This record gives sequence, C-alpha cells and structure tokens, in this order.
Amino acid sequence: MCMQTLNKHVGLFTDYYELIMAQGYLLSGKEDIRVTFDYFYRKNPFGGGYALFVGLEDILELILNFRFEKEDLNYLEKAGFDKRFLEYLIDFRFRGDIWSCKEGEVVFPNEPIMRVEGNIIEAQLIETLLLNFLNFETLIATKAARIRQIAGDKIITDFGLRRAQGMGGIHASRAAIIGGFNSTSNVYSAFSFGLPSSGTQAHSWVQSYENELEAFRSFASIYPDNCVLLVDTYDTLNVGIPNAISVGKEMETKGCRLKGIRLDSGDLAYLSKKARQMLDDAGLNYVKILVSNQLDEYLIKSLKTQGACIDVYGVGTKLITGKDDAALDGVYKLSESDGKPKMKTTDSHEKMTLPGRKKIFRILNGEDKFYADAIALVEEKDIGIIHHPFISRKNMDVSHMKKEELLIKVLDSGTKILASRKPGEIAQYAQERLNQLPEEHKRFENPHAYKVGITEELLILRDKIVNSTNQKNR
Amino acid sequence: MCMQTLNKHVGLFTDYYELIMAQGYLLSGKEDIRVTFDYFYRKNPFGGGYALFVGLEDILELILNFRFEKEDLNYLEKAGFDKRFLEYLIDFRFRGDIWSCKEGEVVFPNEPIMRVEGNIIEAQLIETLLLNFLNFETLIATKAARIRQIAGDKIITDFGLRRAQGMGGIHASRAAIIGGFNSTSNVYSAFSFGLPSSGTQAHSWVQSYENELEAFRSFASIYPDNCVLLVDTYDTLNVGIPNAISVGKEMETKGCRLKGIRLDSGDLAYLSKKARQMLDDAGLNYVKILVSNQLDEYLIKSLKTQGACIDVYGVGTKLITGKDDAALDGVYKLSESDGKPKMKTTDSHEKMTLPGRKKIFRILNGEDKFYADAIALVEEKDIGIIHHPFISRKNMDVSHMKKEELLIKVLDSGTKILASRKPGEIAQYAQERLNQLPEEHKRFENPHAYKVGITEELLILRDKIVNSTNQKNR
Repeated sequence: MCMQTLNKHVGLFTDYYELIMAQGYLLSGKEDIRVTFDYFYRKNPFGGGYALFVGLEDILELILNFRFEKEDLNYLEKAGFDKRFLEYLIDFRFRGDIWSCKEGEVVFPNEPIMRVEGNIIEAQLIETLLLNFLNFETLIATKAARIRQIAGDKIITDFGLRRAQGMGGIHASRAAIIGGFNSTSNVYSAFSFGLPSSGTQAHSWVQSYENELEAFRSFASIYPDNCVLLVDTYDTLNVGIPNAISVGKEMETKGCRLKGIRLDSGDLAYLSKKARQMLDDAGLNYVKILVSNQLDEYLIKSLKTQGACIDVYGVGTKLITGKDDAALDGVYKLSESDGKPKMKTTDSHEKMTLPGRKKIFRILNGEDKFYADAIALVEEKDIGIIHHPFISRKNMDVSHMKKEELLIKVLDSGTKILASRKPGEIAQYAQERLNQLPEEHKRFENPHAYKVGITEELLILRDKIVNSTNQKNR
Repeated sequence: MCMQTLNKHVGLFTDYYELIMAQGYLLSGKEDIRVTFDYFYRKNPFGGGYALFVGLEDILELILNFRFEKEDLNYLEKAGFDKRFLEYLIDFRFRGDIWSCKEGEVVFPNEPIMRVEGNIIEAQLIETLLLNFLNFETLIATKAARIRQIAGDKIITDFGLRRAQGMGGIHASRAAIIGGFNSTSNVYSAFSFGLPSSGTQAHSWVQSYENELEAFRSFASIYPDNCVLLVDTYDTLNVGIPNAISVGKEMETKGCRLKGIRLDSGDLAYLSKKARQMLDDAGLNYVKILVSNQLDEYLIKSLKTQGACIDVYGVGTKLITGKDDAALDGVYKLSESDGKPKMKTTDSHEKMTLPGRKKIFRILNGEDKFYADAIALVEEKDIGIIHHPFISRKNMDVSHMKKEELLIKVLDSGTKILASRKPGEIAQYAQERLNQLPEEHKRFENPHAYKVGITEELLILRDKIVNSTNQKNR
C-alpha cells in the first residue's frame, strides 16, 4: 500500500485558521498544553442506519507525513506568519497518540470513532486533513456497502473515476472496494492500493471501425479470454446483440468463449431479459450480462424486483460521489484541555458535545449481534446502567451482556502501532461486522435507530460541566 | 501556478478499459489512425441555465505530464498487458492538438467545449483524466458563480476543505475562486495555485481557555489587525457577543479595531440583526459580521430577503461538493476517425452525438449580450441559417449578427500554445462573460434555455451519417 499523491506539502493540507490558531497557541505560551479531540459524525449518511468507518490507514500515513518543507515555510512567511512559529514548524511532527475504531468497523452517530491526544498545536493542525479523509472515505464505503447489500452475490464494479470529484476519485475507489465492490476501473488506485481492476471497451472502439461486427470481431481476436462487447452503440436489440451472438458463435469454433455483453443505455430490465433470451436461444447461456448507466442501490433493487437478468453491475457517478449525500458531517471537537474536560454547550442539545477522554463499548446480544453501543470514560472498566444521551429516565442495564471495546491505540507518541491490513482484508472484516448488525438497522426505508447510550459517569460529568461552563461565561 | 500532486504516475489516472482499447488499437495495427473527440455535457448543473467552463490550465498540465514510468509499466506487465504495448508506452507522450473554449467561458449543453485530435491511442488514453478534471472544476466553478451572483458585492469565502471529497478539495478551491469567491481557507490550494486565503479561529480556541472572554482577549492581543471572534461556543446573544463587544472596546483603547465576529449556528437572520444592533449600540459599527453553517445560494438569498446583516459568507460543504449535483455529466465522444465523420445513433435522439470536426460560433445581439450559439463544421467561415438540433423547421437567420468563434487552439502537436493566466485573471474574464449573459438565463428558477443551434451543413452531414450507419450495421 502506498500513497502516491499528497506526499509533499502535506502540512499545507489544512485550513488557514488552523495555522492561525497554532501560531496563537505558540505565541501565548500554550504550546505544551495537552488536549484531547474526538472525531465523530452526527447523522448517518443516505438516510441509513449506520456508517462504515474507512480511511484509517490513509489518515495515519498522512499524519506521519504531516510536515512543513522549506518551500512551505517560505510561503507561510510571505503570508505573514511569525518567525518564531515558522521555526517551530521546521521540525514539526505529530508525536501524539491516536485511538481509533478498526477500519471497516460499523459505527453510529455521536460516538467518538477516533480520539486524538497530543499537544494543542499538533492536535489542532491535523484537524482538516483528518476530517477530509475520514469523512470522505467513510461516506463512499457506506454507499458501497449499501450497494453490496442489495447486489447480493452479483459482481459490482466501480466505474466512477471520470465522474469523481477530481483527485477525490483516488481514495473513493479504495473505499468502494472496502465497502464491498469486487473491482474498479480506476488503474491509479488499483496500482496505489493493490485493488483488483477491470474493464473492456467503450463506444469509441465500436465507432472507430467501419461497422460494429468488424469492431466486435477485432476485439474478440485480440482478447479471446476477456471479451465483453458493448452492444448499444447503434441499435441494441436489432444490431448489437445479434452481432455479439455472431461473434460468440465464431469464438466457439476457435475453442473460445465470449465472456459477456454490456448494456449502457435504455431500459435495462427489459433489454437484459431480451438479451438473456437471445443469448440462451443461440446456445450462449454462459455469456454474462453486464449493465451500467446511472446505477445506485435503489435502481439495482428495482432491476432485481423486475427480474432483470444481470450478472454484473457497473456503478459510477452515484457511488463515487456518494450521491445524494455529498459529505459525511463528521466533526473534530475538543473534549479535554490541560486535564480539564471540555464541551460545547450552545445550540440545540443535539449539538452539545461530550466532555472528557472517552471510549466505546459495543454490547452484543446472545447471538453475537450488535445490540447497543455505550460511550464511557476511559477509566471505566465495565459498565452497568447506560442512559439515553438526552431523554432522562430512558436507560437500560447492560451489566450482564457481552461487550467489546471498539477503540484501539493505533498511534503511540507519533509511531504507528497498528498492523497494516490490505484493502481486501479490511473489506472482509467490514462484511463480518455488517453481518453482525441486525437487519432492521440495514434496511433503506426508515431503518431502526441503533442505540448509542452514555454511561452514568459520563452523564454526571456532562451535567456538571454544563452548569460550571454557564457560570464561568456569564 | 504549479500542480503539486499527481505529478507522478499520471498515465495510470485512467480507466482500465482505456488501456485495453489502446492495446487493442496497437495490436490490430490501428495506432496511426487520426481521430477527433469532442468534450461536451448534456445538462446544465443545479437546474441552472449555463455552466462556467473551468479546468483548462490544469488539464493541459496533466496531459503534458501524461506518461508511464518504469514502475507503472512493471505494474501493467503484471496485470497482463502485452510487451509490444508496454514498449509503445515507454516513450508515450500526447502529441496531438487540442482546441478549447477559454477557461472562464460561459458554456451550454451539447456544444463541443473542447476538441481533441490525435492518433487513436493518445486521444483515447487521456479520456478519463480529461473528463474527471473538466467535469469537476466546471461543476464547482458554476456553483461558485451562482453564489457570487446572489451574494452581490458581499465577501464570500470557501470553507470547504474538511468536507471536500478527499483530494478533490485541491482543485475545487481553485474553481471556487475562478467562479467568483474572494478567498479560501484551503492553504494547500492557495499555495499551489496562488489563491488568496483567510481564516481566524474555531470553537477549540475558545474552549481551550478557562472562559470565553479570556480566549477572545488572548486572540485580540496576538492578532490585533485580523481579529474575528467566533461568538457561538457557549451562548451567542447572552455571552458571545457581549464578550466580543468588551474585547472590541478594549482594543479601541489600544488604537486597534476588532475586525469581525462570526456566527456559526442558530438562526443566522435573527442573530445577525441582533448582533448588528448590539455592535452598533456599543459604537462598534465598523465590526463586520461573518456567518457560516451549511450555506448555499438559496440560503444566502433567503438571508438577504430577510434583511440579515451579514458582511461575509463562509460557504463550505455545498460549494465544495457541488451540492445537489455531485457531478457534471460531461462526456468525450468520437466524432471523426481516419477522416470519416462518426456518431453514436442509438437511444433517444437527445443522446445522439454530432459527427465531424466542429467549432462554436457565439452570436451576440446589438448590446454585445449573448444571443445564441451555433455548432458548425470547422471549414465553415461564416454561418447563415442555424437549426434547432432536433425540431425540424425551427431555425433562424443569424447571417447579419455579430459573431465570435469560441474554440482556440491550446495545444499544437503536444506543445502548449495557450498563454497561462492566473486564477484571478480567469475569474475576471468569467465575470465579464457572465455579465454578457442575459439575466433570464441566470435566474435560479426555470431559467430560459439558451439557444444552441447547428448549421445547415452540420445538419445535412448528421442526417447522412444516421442513414448510412443504420445501413452498414444491419
């Protein structure tokens, strides 16, 4: 696994105000204050019941590369930053600690998926980078998981690079594979992250020949083992499929087999059924049918409901941009500073943050399915009563249930201690975890809300801080 | 201007099938066939009446860097590509010609914004790269232009990096500036492209102090000339604004001026009016009010309608992801091969492509406003009657009207001949062009469709090809 881009100037991948604050902390002598930040999101994407946490390996690699080169410092000097701050940045490295859910974990709103501890400057400076990559990869992996859920055991492949948001496509394809896609058309990401890639022909191949039959024959002769013919350039049913069948029969005489045909326009339900019939009637029942064209989990569901005869789904734009949610609303909030628990108290209670250094317990039912999560303080060894975060007297006793702790230490004083896993391994872990999530949380329409409670101790701490914060600021 | 990322392995930023087709062209002896591809899109983004074409400088730089390194070739060899093809790729450079609209041009559906001519391999291999960057930057610049339109002479600044789609944020911020934004929080892009950047403080700054007043005082002492205070950490009206006013008055005693306050939550219309009143009552009428929180062109319009007192809008997620259109539907279609005009004839007539080497005439009315565009064949020196592409007998005579040709040659046999412009210059050009577009095409609700016709010669050619294509493939 290697990060092919953003290996230079990583320190500049930040919001301007992070640098302004970091300089402010230094110039006011606060640079050694130790703080804790939580990464969490507030709303499940796509109206669904969960998110699939992805981006950990990437963000750790980026944080380890987070530094300022001479060119960067020159730039910041011209932008007016103070010499003392620029000197501080010369040897800047992130030397803090990070605890995180495993990559591929099923996660829920408001729980601290990642906890960052370090001095106030290093913990602040990585905010933008961390939010960007975790928000985005988690979004795309969650979208991919939804598509995998509905596709069942069919093959799904990522066709999105041309419609991806610029270089965002690079990490999106990785997230798609972890979320459950079989392969990607994106060669750059396949190379960078070791992903399976695939692809055959476009309309331009067909158009560049005198006629379609010639184009198909030529392709079959060059790629006898990987021949998928795109049949909708001129007229799918009257020309394209008959031509593909002709070539398929010719291939048989040479001991080869046509691998598939691809439909990229029109009514995919109708056309795929017609195509299946025509192929079967010609004795080509082994030829697969691939489809593409603005697919997402809803269209695939509809196609399956209609009995479409489809073996492979190529999914582009709506996967790679996370349509209709362009972004996960993940945030990075200060929860402790200089040993003192901190929280944001303004706004509606839903926007309150949770104070202190925290961790997550996952509570399992007798069948090892996920039952609820509990946010606890790091000191808590076991938990009993857990509370709804806002509705008082809504609580439950989980003392006798099986529990797992979700946060593991992945960075220790700036050194990575997480054993790296390949995208394929993370994908497998993700599927195992998704299998442990009860169906009612996975359905697309009004999924049942997964319970995320807070422990008695955290509840008491929060209420104490709310009161004292209000007093101090009046 | 410099491209800081994707300067290595650019040749792999492609779809797998591009390589499969390119190898196929080589192995079937078609590598020297000269072809023409058009880049165009089919639907204006955001339900609007136009798009702002952005991404030209970037795509030219990427195309000039499009090559295959030893590591790339080793990877492709392992992936099963043929030795002859890999040898061909060693010295691969794009050596074709490109004609394009100027960056910052106002463009419309179905017109060939860019025309690529070269041998069939080079023209095919750059497809994915070209589509990705042009689609994305044009999408974001168009969104930015809409926000600029509604913001009028107020300051608008890009806060999007943390919610951008991974590294997509890098080019998105550039596009935002070209579309009309004043500055960006994105330091990486500011550094890479020479964009103005800005930013002040987050909630964590305020939280890291014992109380808000102390946090504000400390910030003011470090940044007396650039002090914008975030007032919603605890309680905007009762605590935040009064604290900001106290600090503002203290700054006055030192001969400084509080620059602004920022509201990041709550009812921005109500709070901004209250804040303005409180600041004015305290004699701080010079203090600006900045707002942020899920803004887009519609919310800004609503805030203005409500008489909100806002000087600066910070726009994040919905700008940087092009919400609600995650992608522009730009495509790259073969229009000539080996001297023969080509087109795709299947599907509904709207998906037909236009054959031949083409250019665009822009037709201006007496006040130099844009009246209509006409797609013509490159040989056409002037145009008279232009036709609706699909509705017969819908035509008009433009022979006596003023015209401009929109496509200029930007790459000549692989050499860039376009004079580079800075983002600020392109932004200025874009505003000039947008000013030439009549208001009815710029309104958000049901904008009047801008006329894009085709010339008589192109119409005749298209109909001829449709007939002969159908014959050849039956």
